Amino acid sequence: MPRWSERADRAPLLAFTDSCLRGIGQILFANNPLSGLLILCGIFAASPWLGVATLVGVVSSTATAHLLALDRSRIRAGLYGYNGALVGGALATFLLPAWSPSLLLYAVVASAMSTFVMVAVSLVLVDQFHLPPLTLPFNLVTLPCLLVSFTTTHLQRSPMLVRHVEGPINTVLRESASGVAGSQAGALLEAVLRGVGQIVFADVPLAGVLILLGLLVWSRIGALFALVGSVVGLLVGMLLGGDGHDAYHGLWGYNGMVAAEALAGVFLVWDWRTALYGVTGAAASTGLYAGLAALFGPLGLPALTLPFCLATLVFLALKNASPVFRAVPLPKVTS
Amino acid sequence: MPRWSERADRAPLLAFTDSCLRGIGQILFANNPLSGLLILCGIFAASPWLGVATLVGVVSSTATAHLLALDRSRIRAGLYGYNGALVGGALATFLLPAWSPSLLLYAVVASAMSTFVMVAVSLVLVDQFHLPPLTLPFNLVTLPCLLVSFTTTHLQRSPMLVRHVEGPINTVLRESASGVAGSQAGALLEAVLRGVGQIVFADVPLAGVLILLGLLVWSRIGALFALVGSVVGLLVGMLLGGDGHDAYHGLWGYNGMVAAEALAGVFLVWDWRTALYGVTGAAASTGLYAGLAALFGPLGLPALTLPFCLATLVFLALKNASPVFRAVPLPKVTS
Amino acid sequence: MPRWSERADRAPLLAFTDSCLRGIGQILFANNPLSGLLILCGIFAASPWLGVATLVGVVSSTATAHLLALDRSRIRAGLYGYNGALVGGALATFLLPAWSPSLLLYAVVASAMSTFVMVAVSLVLVDQFHLPPLTLPFNLVTLPCLLVSFTTTHLQRSPMLVRHVEGPINTVLRESASGVAGSQAGALLEAVLRGVGQIVFADVPLAGVLILLGLLVWSRIGALFALVGSVVGLLVGMLLGGDGHDAYHGLWGYNGMVAAEALAGVFLVWDWRTALYGVTGAAASTGLYAGLAALFGPLGLPALTLPFCLATLVFLALKNASPVFRAVPLPKVTS
Repeated sequence: MPRWSERADRAPLLAFTDSCLRGIGQILFANNPLSGLLILCGIFAASPWLGVATLVGVVSSTATAHLLALDRSRIRAGLYGYNGALVGGALATFLLPAWSPSLLLYAVVASAMSTFVMVAVSLVLVDQFHLPPLTLPFNLVTLPCLLVSFTTTHLQRSPMLVRHVEGPINTVLRESASGVAGSQAGALLEAVLRGVGQIVFADVPLAGVLILLGLLVWSRIGALFALVGSVVGLLVGMLLGGDGHDAYHGLWGYNGMVAAEALAGVFLVWDWRTALYGVTGAAASTGLYAGLAALFGPLGLPALTLPFCLATLVFLALKNASPVFRAVPLPKVTS
Repeated sequence: MPRWSERADRAPLLAFTDSCLRGIGQILFANNPLSGLLILCGIFAASPWLGVATLVGVVSSTATAHLLALDRSRIRAGLYGYNGALVGGALATFLLPAWSPSLLLYAVVASAMSTFVMVAVSLVLVDQFHLPPLTLPFNLVTLPCLLVSFTTTHLQRSPMLVRHVEGPINTVLRESASGVAGSQAGALLEAVLRGVGQIVFADVPLAGVLILLGLLVWSRIGALFALVGSVVGLLVGMLLGGDGHDAYHGLWGYNGMVAAEALAGVFLVWDWRTALYGVTGAAASTGLYAGLAALFGPLGLPALTLPFCLATLVFLALKNASPVFRAVPLPKVTS
Repeated sequence: MPRWSERADRAPLLAFTDSCLRGIGQILFANNPLSGLLILCGIFAASPWLGVATLVGVVSSTATAHLLALDRSRIRAGLYGYNGALVGGALATFLLPAWSPSLLLYAVVASAMSTFVMVAVSLVLVDQFHLPPLTLPFNLVTLPCLLVSFTTTHLQRSPMLVRHVEGPINTVLRESASGVAGSQAGALLEAVLRGVGQIVFADVPLAGVLILLGLLVWSRIGALFALVGSVVGLLVGMLLGGDGHDAYHGLWGYNGMVAAEALAGVFLVWDWRTALYGVTGAAASTGLYAGLAALFGPLGLPALTLPFCLATLVFLALKNASPVFRAVPLPKVTS
């Protein structure tokens, strides 16, 4: 869309809006404002409060990047927005109460911090190792921000944020999702779509559909492998005997989804080997999700997208050592 | 003080003493023997046993650097002393009994290790990223050394080193500090001064005063921002609703103190933006303190200065990416 | 053995067997198929199931390296085998039941992953810092793979893998090892030999003897310092007051063993200072073992060889900063 870009660049407010929408798109590597808008619709479809917090996050982190006079082309590509958007969404998901102004203020501050951490992580990963920062800054900011609620009184935790030792695990998908009519196949489809939505904390199938549409307007291969990754994640979860309630709500799917999209659709030149590699990476991310969930559970923390980040970085590190894969040059991906 | 330096360099024992005093000063970036002496007085004012352990630590780590024939100018600047000094102080604070010879021996060994870790951390941070090692080696050595007490019988833990899940938090500053007369304003002032003292485990207001004096003879801006940082830390702690007993004893202040000093007074060229940046960094360090305290509590560990190290490294990483700040070249800071 | 190497290179299957045996040897830096064979005999002497799982691991990770077309000379040197061998052995040790086909499949997948992680770790350690990856990939793969058992139902944990808070510690070596006749000296000797065996999870003295023989055919200094390291580890454990049952079963010895061998026998040019350095490194690794065991115990995880890896990397980082030691060039060590 060169004409839209040109128009946007002439009007500062339009440019800023465009940067923020691309920021939301960049959660799934889609440097495209329309993708961002569709993903945002998906988030609002799940919960308007979640949508507002995500918006506040992307605005705060993008504005911080302007304030610090960071590289303009990177700001315009949404690269200082996606971590902030996720920080906002995460705080609205794991802290209470909804629509609280002080919680929104907390999200503004935390999202701004994500821009600082993005610079630091890029200094290491991009500059030294030619690897993308992925959503690592989001994880590094959100985890301490959630932990703060355990040592202070002014932050209120949602029931999702509780220190627990693993109890009995119910592996039956259908029964776990109470009050849901329909077939087992329908439940599986829901789980896959919720898995897509969970990347932005949107736990409704409609969000998954809107996100996949958002990806489709940007890249067909990207959308395809996001879907494939969510399926792979769900299958690995069922194969390992993961909790059915979690599986139904898409928690086994979202890490695999982004991993498959990143490997097969974004950072490596597409061919059948890359496709296989994306599936493998999705499975590895999901396995790591199971591991990190066990590590973080007793600490009262969610695994967020740390499994995806760590597994994908390991898989991308191979691009220089193995002649089997060809990497898309990083600047070409990110701009 | 060129004349003192010259005289010191001619007499090996005097030079070693000078290196050790600078090492104590370097805990707060003050490459100045008089600063080190005043800080040491502050530590002794809090507890003679703490003072002896700190001295033993700085001597052991500095001597180890000589033994390994490390860079002489760095040894003379106290850069192989400050981590050892802190290791000694930490072990005397968190392990028992006081004046135990075997504990002192443990401090000698652990402080010597801090020199090895300093070399390794510098290899990564200084050589690759042009970032200062800060007190990271102190944290990396002390945390395992404290953990050892949980799996062995010959080390005795102080009541401060106990695995706990967060209980109710009392946010009223005055009432928490039992047996203290005086006004709320007096309690706040005490909390700020204890916050300065806590950087060397000295939990008395007099230590804070002596440390600020020590900084004053070296740099007025450094002293000012150490004070400002402790205030900011206390305010953030009260804003978040942190525990009043901890706040009174300065535990919310010391990370903010060093962070503000490092950013506004040491590593960046001073102007109003740097000043604001120092305040922001102090707030971020304190927020991270709250988060890490929640992570470490169930493990039975103190957060030490890890919050300051991590937050400050992130904030310093910005110096190359943003034109807003000008960095003082690292060799100029550290010598 | 140039003639054996030449013959092996002409026959693909023989070459692959040779690579795998060297892979087992490389667990202890011995790039020698006969060493690998003797170590493998030691593992089988402890438990045939452990032996099969180790074999499956080394075959899977070496085959994965071929599949990814990684550097052939590194594959032939066994460098893509040793982590996989350890992953296989670890899963057979900490998961149940023995001889389970699905557990063996899990080992195949996990060991294959170790090759990916080896590439990523080498990108950082070897390429950037000229430091060896040691057995870090094994730790980074095994820990999440064991954690998965806490959030899923299809993996069964052995009694060794349980979340525990430290209880009373029995420091008497002899009494702890129930049902063992003989003298205190005999128990100490057993503990030292089991310490050697524990590096491959082989908890019988005969395994220690076979491993030392395997090292002897490759390097006398290597074998000597492996023995010395196990002794140092046991002594440090007793000095700190570690658990006698663990000490008898070699758990205090294996990290010290590899550390001493690595520092005095592999990566530094041998002289009396290096020998002293190896002993110091063995002591530091063992201290770190005590610390990490306390950190990992409540999480239900074993410390594996993480203490050895971290301590040895710190000690090797010194090679550029201190003129006291001369390093063997890394390519010369690893091929």
